[in-house]
Order: sequence, then structure tokens, then C-alpha cells
Amino acid sequence: MRIDGQQYKTIWNEEGTIKIIDQTKLPHQFVIKELNSSNDAINAIKNMEVRGAPLIGATAAFGLVLAIRENNVPEYLKKKSYDLIQSRPTAINLKWAVDRMMKKIHKTNEGILDEALEEAEIICKEDEESCKKIGINGLNLIKGLYERTKKTVNILTHCNAGWLATINWGTATSPIYMAYNEGIPIHVWVDETRPRNQGANLTSFELNEENIPNTIISDNTGGLLMQRGMVDMCIVGSDRTLLNGDVCNKVGTYLKALAAYDNQVPFYVALPSSTIDWNLKDSKDIPIEERNSKELSYIRGVDKNNDLGELLIYPKKSKSLNLAFDITPAKYVTALITEKGICEPTEKSIRASLNY
Amino acid sequence: MRIDGQQYKTIWNEEGTIKIIDQTKLPHQFVIKELNSSNDAINAIKNMEVRGAPLIGATAAFGLVLAIRENNVPEYLKKKSYDLIQSRPTAINLKWAVDRMMKKIHKTNEGILDEALEEAEIICKEDEESCKKIGINGLNLIKGLYERTKKTVNILTHCNAGWLATINWGTATSPIYMAYNEGIPIHVWVDETRPRNQGANLTSFELNEENIPNTIISDNTGGLLMQRGMVDMCIVGSDRTLLNGDVCNKVGTYLKALAAYDNQVPFYVALPSSTIDWNLKDSKDIPIEERNSKELSYIRGVDKNNDLGELLIYPKKSKSLNLAFDITPAKYVTALITEKGICEPTEKSIRASLNY
Repeated sequence: MRIDGQQYKTIWNEEGTIKIIDQTKLPHQFVIKELNSSNDAINAIKNMEVRGAPLIGATAAFGLVLAIRENNVPEYLKKKSYDLIQSRPTAINLKWAVDRMMKKIHKTNEGILDEALEEAEIICKEDEESCKKIGINGLNLIKGLYERTKKTVNILTHCNAGWLATINWGTATSPIYMAYNEGIPIHVWVDETRPRNQGANLTSFELNEENIPNTIISDNTGGLLMQRGMVDMCIVGSDRTLLNGDVCNKVGTYLKALAAYDNQVPFYVALPSSTIDWNLKDSKDIPIEERNSKELSYIRGVDKNNDLGELLIYPKKSKSLNLAFDITPAKYVTALITEKGICEPTEKSIRASLNY
Repeated sequence: MRIDGQQYKTIWNEEGTIKIIDQTKLPHQFVIKELNSSNDAINAIKNMEVRGAPLIGATAAFGLVLAIRENNVPEYLKKKSYDLIQSRPTAINLKWAVDRMMKKIHKTNEGILDEALEEAEIICKEDEESCKKIGINGLNLIKGLYERTKKTVNILTHCNAGWLATINWGTATSPIYMAYNEGIPIHVWVDETRPRNQGANLTSFELNEENIPNTIISDNTGGLLMQRGMVDMCIVGSDRTLLNGDVCNKVGTYLKALAAYDNQVPFYVALPSSTIDWNLKDSKDIPIEERNSKELSYIRGVDKNNDLGELLIYPKKSKSLNLAFDITPAKYVTALITEKGICEPTEKSIRASLNY
């Protein structure tokens, strides 16, 4: 998608050098960063220079390519794949991508580096293709709403499940981009998404760059907007979806799902099928990542001279707790949008839709 | 209550000078400000140097005293009472306090200034008394929970319905202060409460100053904590409560009520009966205050040199919308705690409890 009119992807191989957009600097600065070692990849994931389940997976895949370059012995690669998987605990397709890479590496003996690089690029390409299909499938839902009302479709989204969270197109945003490209009038309510403000910093930023009308609201506001009939549908992403339809996504998603349910607003979750957890039975067993509480108490922005700065916004004596995800029970989810189609959040429907 | 070990109220008459704590500077600076004119009072309300329904009412009452000092003619006072009522659109007891003062002023001819000042002070004293009684009534609920579990009682609150929103004690916090004073182990989850962060800036600050354990969380987090059994009860304040039990409070309250309902966590609303709206039938007709969107896009704090600063935290091209309140339907409210007792959020129960 576009930034300042130019087409980008979130991670790419430029003549052997792996490059990313440093998303911690957005929206105030646009910085491209090189990943020159497997540790660079691990740190990029840990520090959220890259974030979003699909992009984390792709970065881990390239991280293993870099590890092979560093020291192509099984123990080293095993250690690195462990470190990569540990770099963020919640995202399911981090492990998926690493396992897939390790399987590929295991099979090859010669040309392992080329094959690994090719595999990482296939992972990216598949993700892009998958996001595109999510967009086409979700487009039908937006189109359906528009056909009935012939009014601007107001869509609420939480956090950033935009193209910046994937390789291109995004998951939750992909249907929005598709609808916009078809000329359907769209307006997006963007949850600020504290503490890291990825809604404001990333989703609103990327929608602006594609000229899609959007308004940032505090995370507290969506319920009121739904009460007052100002939201036609919600579309969010997912970091991990269980077979029973429970959705683990950025903390606060659950609260919006409750409000949507209470106000009969359809609540859709867009996800690539690679983020489905086929094993875990109970969402209570999903480990919820606890991040540094300074992400809450400190905030970044630009001062009046346009210089990047950071402020402490809490009382000095105060403690804070930073849990990153919550669970939206399946009963509050209207449907899942995957690259394979639209399905109900039930095991039967998920299996049928994904042919699994 | 205490700040830095010293007892304060939020507004007081010091030998004829009306003084307030400038709450826009908290928690980073503690500044006492004089209100020297009715316009000072109006601006203090508008700029949220004072906030919280009871304190707004008291400030408006003193504002009328100042107006009498300025120009004791009916037209002027009428104009000023209109301006005071308009200074914040949602708080119901702003109008209540102004009407009460105007009635008093109307009755007196000589000694009007003294009588007005006395009336304003009675309003403060009554509010303090009322908050104290809310505390005593709410204490029983906390005590009941503690008696059953003998474990630390975890209470979630939203925004600031603390003593800084009233004259003393607070509404939602009053039962907490009472329980703490009785030696019941308490821990408070404080919703940050974007966009103005009154939870972090004021509630956590005032709890710290009274040594009550508390942890700030993002507004997104309360649902997860309830899902994981980490919240025993919610207590929030109310800016306006309808006879049908619908509660208008700081935006985001509704989302916490939904989560509480979904997880069988009791959800209490603490309010002085002066904030009950006896006339309005439908909460859809409550005007929701739209505040300046810069409250969202700019944020204040202190830099590493401890200097107050302000940063733009949103993309420059982004729009934002700042709606200040939402409605929690009565069905999600476990009970109302007033100075008269505890009642169900129904007209019958409210009337019976308030003997009205």
C-alpha cells in the first residue's frame, strides 16, 4: 500500500538485505531499517518495530534465514528458532512460521540458504495473497450493507490489523481498502488503542495515506457510538483464534464485541487461517502477554518544534499493569472472515470453510 | 482528604476568597487558584480546573456569590446563572445548584451576599455529608464481600468519582476510603480514562496520597481482568441518573458495565441524590457533550527534567472525535448507592429509597 504516494510492503528482501519499516517511529517519522542479524530480527519483534501476527511470522522466517547465514549448524538454528518463538508469547503464527521454516531447512542439505530465503519469501507472498482474499470476501459484507442503505458505511476497528500488521492489504482493513477501491463510501472509526496507540499511530496513518476518511476515538467511545447508531459494523483482526471460535486479539477487543452484541451491530473478525490454533481447547489457557508498564506511563509524540519526545503521564508514585490481549468469546462474534471465505465462529463451520 | 499529608477540600472560602485546586495541573503540580470573579468560576468549570458533578455544582454556587459581588441586579444574575448552567452541558446538578442559589437570592433583599455565601457553603457541607453517607452505605457492600472471602477486595473504578470530583470523600471512592479506614484489605484497579486521563491523573493520585494500593490500567483492560476473576466489584460515579435507573457517566463506563454483567461482577453506581434527573424519561435524550478533539490528540506530562510539557500524539492529518459521556442502561447496574441507602436501578426502588 502507499505511504506518501509510494508503494511499500512491510518487509522485503532488497538484493539480499532484509528491510522493514520501523513502526515504533510511525506516524511521526518514516524510517526504513535493515535487519542484519537474527538478533536484529528478534529485537525487531520484541521492540515492536514489526508487529501484527502475520508480519511477526514473516520477520521470524527472515530471522532464520539470517541465522543460517550466521552459523549453519542445527544446534544454533534450534536455539535461534526457540528465541524467535519466545520473542512474543501470544501470536500463534510466529510459531507456525518458525516451524515451517525449520521443516524446510531440515529437508535440505545443499543450497539451504537459498531455499530458506525462498521459503521466507513464499510465506510473505502467501500472506499477501491471503490478505487480498480476506479483502475480497469481506468486501461482500460491506457491499451488502451499502446496497441496503445507500449511505456511507461506518466501520469501527480496534488496534491495527492493517497492512502494516501484515505484508500488504492487512486483515481487518483489507475489506475496507477493497470497498474503497470499488467506490463504496466508507468512514472508519479508529479506536486509539492504548497503551501503544496502534489505532491512532498506524491504522489512522495508513488509512490517511490511502485517502480513506477516518476518525480517531478514545477506546472508551465505541460503545456510545453504537448506542447512537453511528456504527454499521465492526471489523477487527485476531492474533489467535480457537477452533471453538474464541478470538484472542488486542486488549479491548472484547469490550467492543460486547457493545456490538448489545446494540445488534455485526462484529466481524478478519484473519488468515494461519492464525487459527488447532490444538488449544480453552481460551482461558491462552497466555496473555504482560508487557512493560512503561508503555502505559510514558507516551511518545512530537512537540511544537516537531521534535520527537516522550513524557511521563502518570503520577510518579503510581503502579500500572500492561496486559496486551483479551479474549472475545465466540458468542459475540458474528462471523470470521478468512482467505477461504466467511464462516461462523464454530468448530463445524470453521472446519467446513477451511476444509480441514 | 490528604495531599502530601495535609487535609484539603476541593473548594473553600478563605476569609472571603474562594479557592480551588487547579485539577488540570494534577498530578504533576499542586496549584491552588483563586476565583476572583464569576467569569473565573465559569472558566474553571469550562476548562475543567474543577470537574465532577458535585464540585461543578458547588463552583457554580460560589460563581453566583461572585456575580452578586460584581453587580447585584436581577438581569445580571440571570445572565450569569445562564452562563454557569451552559458552562458544562451534561452535569445535572450544575443546574440544580444554580436553581437553588437563585431561589435563595430571589427570596432575600438585604444581606443577600451573606445569605448567598452561606447557601453556597451549605451546598458544600451537604455534599460532604452526603458523600460521607454514600461511603458508609457502600462500605457494607465491600465488607460483605470481604467477610465471605477474607481476601483483598479488588475494586475497579472508571474516571474520577473521587474526593477531587466532590468536596470531600468522593462518591465512588467514599466506600473505598471507609473500607480502608476499617482495615479491610483493598486494591483498586484504576481505569486510565482517556482522553483526559482523570483515572490516572486524579483517582490514582488521590488513592496514592491516602496510601490505598492501586494499579492504573488502560481503559481496554478491565474486561480481561473480569474474565480472569481479578475484579470483585466495580464502583463508578454518575453525572446524571434517570429515574428508570439509566446512568450517564464518563464515556467508557458502559463498556465496563457490559463486561461486569458478562462476568457476574457486581456493578455499583455511587451518586448523591442531587444528580438524579427527575424529569427526563429517555436516556437517548441526554445531550452528550462533545469536547475539543485536541484533548485526544495532545497529551500533557512531565519530561525527564520534570518540566510540564505537551505532545501531539496523533498523525498530523488525522481527525478525532471527543464525546465525553455514555449511557449505562439500568439492566447492567447491580445497585445504586446514594446517601439514603442502596437501591435497585428502578423507578420504584429509587423513589422508595429517596422517599420521593
